[in-house]
Amino acid sequence: MGQWQLTGGVSESIGDSALFGIITVSDRASKGEYEDEGGPAILGFFAEAINSPWQAHYRCVPDEISTIKAAIIELADEVGCCVIVTTGGTGPAIRDVTPEATEAVCERILPGFGEQMRAISLKFVPTAILSRQIGGTRGKSIIFNLPGRPKAIRETIDELWRAVPYGVDLLGGPYIDCNPQICDAFRPKSARR
Amino acid sequence: MGQWQLTGGVSESIGDSALFGIITVSDRASKGEYEDEGGPAILGFFAEAINSPWQAHYRCVPDEISTIKAAIIELADEVGCCVIVTTGGTGPAIRDVTPEATEAVCERILPGFGEQMRAISLKFVPTAILSRQIGGTRGKSIIFNLPGRPKAIRETIDELWRAVPYGVDLLGGPYIDCNPQICDAFRPKSARR
Amino acid sequence: MGQWQLTGGVSESIGDSALFGIITVSDRASKGEYEDEGGPAILGFFAEAINSPWQAHYRCVPDEISTIKAAIIELADEVGCCVIVTTGGTGPAIRDVTPEATEAVCERILPGFGEQMRAISLKFVPTAILSRQIGGTRGKSIIFNLPGRPKAIRETIDELWRAVPYGVDLLGGPYIDCNPQICDAFRPKSARR
Repeated sequence: MGQWQLTGGVSESIGDSALFGIITVSDRASKGEYEDEGGPAILGFFAEAINSPWQAHYRCVPDEISTIKAAIIELADEVGCCVIVTTGGTGPAIRDVTPEATEAVCERILPGFGEQMRAISLKFVPTAILSRQIGGTRGKSIIFNLPGRPKAIRETIDELWRAVPYGVDLLGGPYIDCNPQICDAFRPKSARR
Repeated sequence: MGQWQLTGGVSESIGDSALFGIITVSDRASKGEYEDEGGPAILGFFAEAINSPWQAHYRCVPDEISTIKAAIIELADEVGCCVIVTTGGTGPAIRDVTPEATEAVCERILPGFGEQMRAISLKFVPTAILSRQIGGTRGKSIIFNLPGRPKAIRETIDELWRAVPYGVDLLGGPYIDCNPQICDAFRPKSARR
Repeated sequence: MGQWQLTGGVSESIGDSALFGIITVSDRASKGEYEDEGGPAILGFFAEAINSPWQAHYRCVPDEISTIKAAIIELADEVGCCVIVTTGGTGPAIRDVTPEATEAVCERILPGFGEQMRAISLKFVPTAILSRQIGGTRGKSIIFNLPGRPKAIRETIDELWRAVPYGVDLLGGPYIDCNPQICDAFRPKSARR
């Protein structure tokens, strides 16, 4: 199980310091047979889009429900990540179990996340409807499943993230400040710093 | 718990008399610390959009699952409302429990209601995906969750209501006749009076 | 309970031979009081759209959960259909139970199927949100609920089917080759023959 952590953002930002979790779900990448491209694509988004200080915690796990659940729970409950994103394992194939693991550890499902992620991908490929991606919350963490390919990851997260900082606000988490040229995150006026 | 009832529509309409339920879910409004704006916005829609005779029954309750469930059950089973709409309490915050209460008392979920309500709001704000709004049926009642703000209520109900009269028909309820300038409700030709 | 089977496609296609199931759910059609138009509309799609050899197995059953479940299970587990489509029984009326039966026999739900089918129908009628259509998988079978009217069936399946052949690939089923003039099915380059 590979893991590392990286930091970014600038301390003079108006935002607070935030912890993000990245979980790559892949049998092959977790055995080192294949270099993970999904995790670095998500990290690339954070590096470009987040102005406020952040630290990303990365885990790479095989397509096993128990292992994926354990990784989400650790990043949510022990590390304290306000956002946890997974990549991989959301298709209809028998080894794809990321949505099952995510649903099992979420206290609440946010159905709009899955709906919008599929609607975004559907603009690019008709097979987007085969994806079972979901999103939800566990305590103060927002958790959602991204696609596996770097291109599809960025198509999805660049758009979806517009709702994430305000979602984190509503859960009592840190104020995440974004670079509007990459991701024009929205907050109602009363919630803006 | 505030409550009142109001009537509208014209008796020369081709439609039948219908009972509607409005439930404002808000800790502050139910304590009188804040004047409810959501309930009146829904009432304003009924006043403008419904030609056939109607009576609206209003309840204002705190963000408590048991109280919201009791209000829906009373309006569906005792008062006999063919449509019950709630406003407030559908976000991801810990006090938001309206979708949970609605799901618990519905016999069937109509997933298209939640999907379309979020799709409508997404045209206005990217944070629409944080809403957990749902719709469903209990006996002959159609029940759905509207947003909390008057502007978002009208953006949603004016569009969504186009499907409601035919839905009520299919459940064996009264024929609701609408003002097409406000809400161009649709029925297959065979179902029109 | 009416049933028949029909074959189509051309053996010189690059695809494999595939078995499809068609289930018409209708109290009246199953009693012979009414001629089924939904089943033939689905068959018409297969005849126009599928180049590779196929055999369709047809069943006509009443709106009873146990009977619909039995028909899906037979076509999936005994006949070995890689795709099973139903028509009828997806509305909110009390006799409409096709989605319940489908959900009960699916091992996994593919939420994108229901979402996209409603989104397609919503372009034609606002009452599309009343439909509770779902899709899912059971073993190697993809199962989904189409509307009841022939026109609505074709509006839906012509678009939705673009994702089905690749979905069947991912479940280890036969390679279905389509006529791109009717249905421009998509596969990632690496999955194309």
